[in-house]
Amino acid sequence: MRLSKLVGKRVKENPAGATLRSHILLLRAGYIKQVGSGIFSLLPPAQRVSLKIQKIIREEMDNLGGQEVLFPVVMPKELWQMSGRYDSIKEEMVRFKDRNNHDMLLGMTHEEAAVHMLLNNISSPEDLPCMIYQIQTKFRDEARPRGGLIRVREFTMKDAYSFHNTQEDLDSFYKKMYDAYIRIYKRLGFKNFVVVEGDNGIMGGKVSHEYMAVTDAGEDYLVICPKCHYSSNMEVAVCQKDENDHNMAGEAEEVFTGNAHTIEEVCAFLQTDAKHTAKAVCYQSDNDQKLIVAFLRGDHEINESKLKKLVKSEISFVDTDKYGLVAGNIGMLNLNVPEGTYIFYDKSLEGLENLITGANKPERHINHVSMTRDVKNAEFVDISLVKEGEKCAHCGETLTLTRGIEIGNIFQLGTKYTSSMGLKVNAPDGTQKDVIMGCYGIGIGRNLASIIEEKADDKGLVWPITIAPWQVHLCPLRIDDESVNAISEEVYRNLTKAGIEVLFDDRNVSAGVKLTDSELMGVPIRVVISPKTLANLEAEITMRATGDKMFVPIKDLENEIKLAIAEETNLIMENL
Amino acid sequence: MRLSKLVGKRVKENPAGATLRSHILLLRAGYIKQVGSGIFSLLPPAQRVSLKIQKIIREEMDNLGGQEVLFPVVMPKELWQMSGRYDSIKEEMVRFKDRNNHDMLLGMTHEEAAVHMLLNNISSPEDLPCMIYQIQTKFRDEARPRGGLIRVREFTMKDAYSFHNTQEDLDSFYKKMYDAYIRIYKRLGFKNFVVVEGDNGIMGGKVSHEYMAVTDAGEDYLVICPKCHYSSNMEVAVCQKDENDHNMAGEAEEVFTGNAHTIEEVCAFLQTDAKHTAKAVCYQSDNDQKLIVAFLRGDHEINESKLKKLVKSEISFVDTDKYGLVAGNIGMLNLNVPEGTYIFYDKSLEGLENLITGANKPERHINHVSMTRDVKNAEFVDISLVKEGEKCAHCGETLTLTRGIEIGNIFQLGTKYTSSMGLKVNAPDGTQKDVIMGCYGIGIGRNLASIIEEKADDKGLVWPITIAPWQVHLCPLRIDDESVNAISEEVYRNLTKAGIEVLFDDRNVSAGVKLTDSELMGVPIRVVISPKTLANLEAEITMRATGDKMFVPIKDLENEIKLAIAEETNLIMENL
Repeated sequence: MRLSKLVGKRVKENPAGATLRSHILLLRAGYIKQVGSGIFSLLPPAQRVSLKIQKIIREEMDNLGGQEVLFPVVMPKELWQMSGRYDSIKEEMVRFKDRNNHDMLLGMTHEEAAVHMLLNNISSPEDLPCMIYQIQTKFRDEARPRGGLIRVREFTMKDAYSFHNTQEDLDSFYKKMYDAYIRIYKRLGFKNFVVVEGDNGIMGGKVSHEYMAVTDAGEDYLVICPKCHYSSNMEVAVCQKDENDHNMAGEAEEVFTGNAHTIEEVCAFLQTDAKHTAKAVCYQSDNDQKLIVAFLRGDHEINESKLKKLVKSEISFVDTDKYGLVAGNIGMLNLNVPEGTYIFYDKSLEGLENLITGANKPERHINHVSMTRDVKNAEFVDISLVKEGEKCAHCGETLTLTRGIEIGNIFQLGTKYTSSMGLKVNAPDGTQKDVIMGCYGIGIGRNLASIIEEKADDKGLVWPITIAPWQVHLCPLRIDDESVNAISEEVYRNLTKAGIEVLFDDRNVSAGVKLTDSELMGVPIRVVISPKTLANLEAEITMRATGDKMFVPIKDLENEIKLAIAEETNLIMENL
Repeated sequence: MRLSKLVGKRVKENPAGATLRSHILLLRAGYIKQVGSGIFSLLPPAQRVSLKIQKIIREEMDNLGGQEVLFPVVMPKELWQMSGRYDSIKEEMVRFKDRNNHDMLLGMTHEEAAVHMLLNNISSPEDLPCMIYQIQTKFRDEARPRGGLIRVREFTMKDAYSFHNTQEDLDSFYKKMYDAYIRIYKRLGFKNFVVVEGDNGIMGGKVSHEYMAVTDAGEDYLVICPKCHYSSNMEVAVCQKDENDHNMAGEAEEVFTGNAHTIEEVCAFLQTDAKHTAKAVCYQSDNDQKLIVAFLRGDHEINESKLKKLVKSEISFVDTDKYGLVAGNIGMLNLNVPEGTYIFYDKSLEGLENLITGANKPERHINHVSMTRDVKNAEFVDISLVKEGEKCAHCGETLTLTRGIEIGNIFQLGTKYTSSMGLKVNAPDGTQKDVIMGCYGIGIGRNLASIIEEKADDKGLVWPITIAPWQVHLCPLRIDDESVNAISEEVYRNLTKAGIEVLFDDRNVSAGVKLTDSELMGVPIRVVISPKTLANLEAEITMRATGDKMFVPIKDLENEIKLAIAEETNLIMENL
C-alpha cells in the first residue's frame, strides 16, 4: 500500500473529547472516524487489523470443531419472546416496527437465533456436542458510549454457542474454550490479562468467566490474589471478613449525635472507628417496587450487583422520606418499614457486638448494639465490595485491586434458552431432555483498542506483528533523490512479491513528518532508506516496540525482514 | 467436516411456500433457515459458500487498488439529511429512535458514510483517485421479500465507492470496475449472464449498468439484441418504432362504441386493429398530487419507470371519476383536465393518422384522429415497454425479451453526494471543485442463490468448484465394513492434510440415503468407497455437474482428486 493513496490522514493535535490513549491514537493515526455517538467507521488500517483479529479467532474456533454460521442482525419479536428476553431487556435493545407494523429488534446477542437454528436440526444425543459461531455486527444502545472503540453501541463480535447432552460434556468443552480464549489473547499479543469469575447479567446461567485486559483505562474493577491466583470481577468478588469486636459491652442505649449523619461524622462525634458502626443503604426494587434496606459495617461499601441478584431485579435509589425513615439515622433496631421490605445484613456484621447504628429518629444513634442479642432472625448475606487490604477467601493472602477492560467472556448457560424454546434430545429412557448450552463472546473492536492500551507509547501505536495492519513500514527519506527513489521502489516491489505486507511512504515530505507518522501508525518493522544509508549500500531497520535498530545491506534486506517477522511472531507463539 | 456433526439436516419434502429452485434446495439441503419475513440464518454450508464468494470479490477489489473499510449499519439521521435521502427514501428504510430519542436509521447503502469517511481526509487532487469498499450487512424493508435468498430484507453486500478528479478519470476507472465485475461472475461460475443499461433509481447519477443472471426465476425483464448485443433492463429499454398508418383519412368524427371500454373491446366493436387506436393511462404523481394522463398506441403498454422519471416522482393509480373523466373513453380531443395535469404522448403515436381514441363521453369514441392535424403542441416521449418482435434501435435486428436476476450493479454517481456533503478538492485555478464519484454493489446471498438457479438440477445443488462449500464429498458405503471404515478414515485424514476440503459422510446409513444426500448437497467431486470398489483397491469418483464417473486406485486417489480440482478450476479460470 502506498501511503500517498491510503485513505485517512494523520493529525498532530489530540482530538477534542478523547481521553483514552487508544481513542486518541486511533483518531490521530487515521484508523477510525466517528459517525455518531458510539458509532464508528473503520478506515483501511483499522479494518486490516480487525480482519487479522478475526482470522486468529476463526482459526481457534475451527480448531475446536466450530462451524461458522451467520445469524441476522434484525430479528422478529417472536423469537425473543420465546426466551422471555424481549420483555426482560430494557432500553439497551433497539426495537422498531417494520413497514407491515411488525415488531422487530436489533440483535444484541444471538442465543435465541442459535437455538432456533438447531430446532429440527438435532434430535438424537449423537448429534451432540456441536458448536456454531458467527462474526457479525451487533448493536447495543449503551447509555454511555465512551473511549472510542472501548465502549461503543455498534460493534463486530464473534459469538459462539455450544450444545451438549450432559453437564459433564459442557464442563469439558467449556475448559477447552477457556483455553482457546487464552490462546487467542496471547496470539493477539496481550501480555497483561487475567481471567476472572464473571457476573452473568442478562445471560442467565451459573458459571462464567471474563477475560480482562489489565489497564487503568478499564472501567471494571478486579480483585486478584497474587498467591493463589483467585481473580474476580468486583461485582462478584468475595473475601475473608477481617476480625472485629465480638465482645458484648452492655445494653443498647440511645445517644445524641446531633447533625452527624454520615459514618465519618458519627465516628468523629462519638470518637470511634467506622469498624464499630453499622450503616444502612436503601434502594427500591424495580420489579416489585418494594423498599430494600441493606445494613453493612460502616467501613464497607455496598455491592449493588450482589444486591440485584438477591432481589432478582434492577434497583433504583429511593426517597427514604416517603417511608418515614430518617436519612442518616436509619438503624437496625426499632426500624419501622412496610411489610414485604427486603432487609439484608452484610456478612461483615455477622456476630459483631458493641456496634453503633442509627436510632431511626433525628439526632440520635444507638450504642452497644449486639448482632447476637438485639437483632433476631437476621439473614447474613454477602453484599459488600471487596476492599484494598482484605484477605483472599481461598488462601488468606492480601488481595490486590486493579482495573480492567473486559475483552471476552464465556458462559455456561445451562438450559435457560433450550428449555424455553423446546430444544430437546431423546434420552435413552425414551423421554426427552433439554439440551445444555454454553456461549462465548469476543468483541473485535474492543480487543483492537485494548491491545493499544497495553502497547502504545507516547509516540503512537505499537502493533504486535500478528495483528499489525502491515508488517513493514518502508520509509525512504529524500525520495527526490533518484537512487533512493529507484531502490525504494524496487524494495517495495520485491517485499510485496515475497508476500510481505508493506506500507510504502512514497510521499515527498520531510524526514521529520515521515518518521513521526511511522511512529504514530505503529507498524512493527520500519525500514529507512536514505542517501546516507545508501552510501554504505544499506538500509536501517527499526523495531517499533523496542526501538532496536540495525543496519543491513540492501541485498540482505528481504531476508533480514523475514527473520525479524519470524522472531516477532515466535515471541508471541512460543508462549501458547 | 464429518457429516454426522454438521449442523443442518437434509429433508426430502419440498418446503411449503417455496417455489424457486434455489429457495427449495437451500432449505432442503440444510443451507439456510428462515428467521422472519425476508430474514434468514445461514447454516455452515451456506456460510462457507458465502465466505468463498467474499474472498473472490475481495481479491478483485484489492486488485483494483480497493481499500477495505467498514461503515456502520446504524447511522444517525443527520448523515442522511446531508444528501437529502433521509426524506426522499420512504418505507424501504428502517428508522428508529434510540434511548436518547435521537433519530437513527439502518443503512440500505453507504454513499453518505463513504463521503463522510473522506471528508477532511482528502483535499488535494493528488489524493485521488481512490476506491474504498466494505462487506457488510444491509437492511432494506422490502414490501415483498420472495424466493429465499433472491429477494430478502437483510443481506450481506460488497459495496465500493470510488472518487475522482475528473469525469474522464471516473470513466476510465468505471471501465475497469465493469471488467472486474465480469471476472467476478466468471470466477463464481456463472455462464449465462448479461450486462444491461440500468435504471439509477434512488442512487441518482446518469450512467449505470446492471449485471443480470439470465434465468426464468428472475423478476427483471431484459431486452437483448442478438446481433449488436445491445442489452437493457426493460425499465429503460428503447427500440425502433415500427411502421404504421401515416395517411390522413378524413375528418375526426364521433362514433358509437356502446359498452366497449378496453382496447380489445373497441377493436372488436369497430372491426379494427389495436395499431389504429390510441389509449390513455392515468396516474397521480406522489410528489405534487397532480393528475398524469399518458397516451400510447393501443398495442403498447405503459413503462411506469420511464413515467416516474418524467415527473420526477413516484406515481400512484388514480380514481379518474374524481376528475370527471370517463374511464374507458378517455381520448386526446376535448380532454377536460385541471390546469397543471401532466399530459404525455408516447413516441409510438408520433405522426400517426387515422386513429381511434376515446371521446371523453360515455359510449363514444372518435375515429380518423390525426396526430398532425388534431393534436397540437404534443410532446412525444418514450413511455412504452419494448415488446417481443420490436426492432433494435441500434441495428434493426429483432429484439429478444428474457428474464433475469440482478446480481450486481455499478453507477456513475457524478457529484450528487459530494456536492451536497461538501467533499471538494482544490482545483489548479485556486477554486475548489466537487469530487466525482462512482459506486459498485454486489449482494453475496443473491449471487449464491442465482448460481443455484443456473446450475442446479432435479437432484439438487451443483456448486462450481470455486465457491463449493467443500471440494470433495467422501462417501463410504457400508461403513460397518471394517476395511471400508479404516480406508475411508485414512483417505479423509490424508486429503484434509493435503489441504483439500472434504465433507466426510461418516454416518452408518444406507447407500441410497448417502448418495441422495450427496446429490442434494452439490459438492463437485464425490468419492465413493465400498466393499465393491475396494475389491479392486479402487474408489469411484463422480463429478456432480456432469455425472462423469471413473474408478481410480486408492493409492492414486489424492493425485486424481487434485487433478480433478485443477481441471474444474481451469475450466472456470481460462475464460477470464
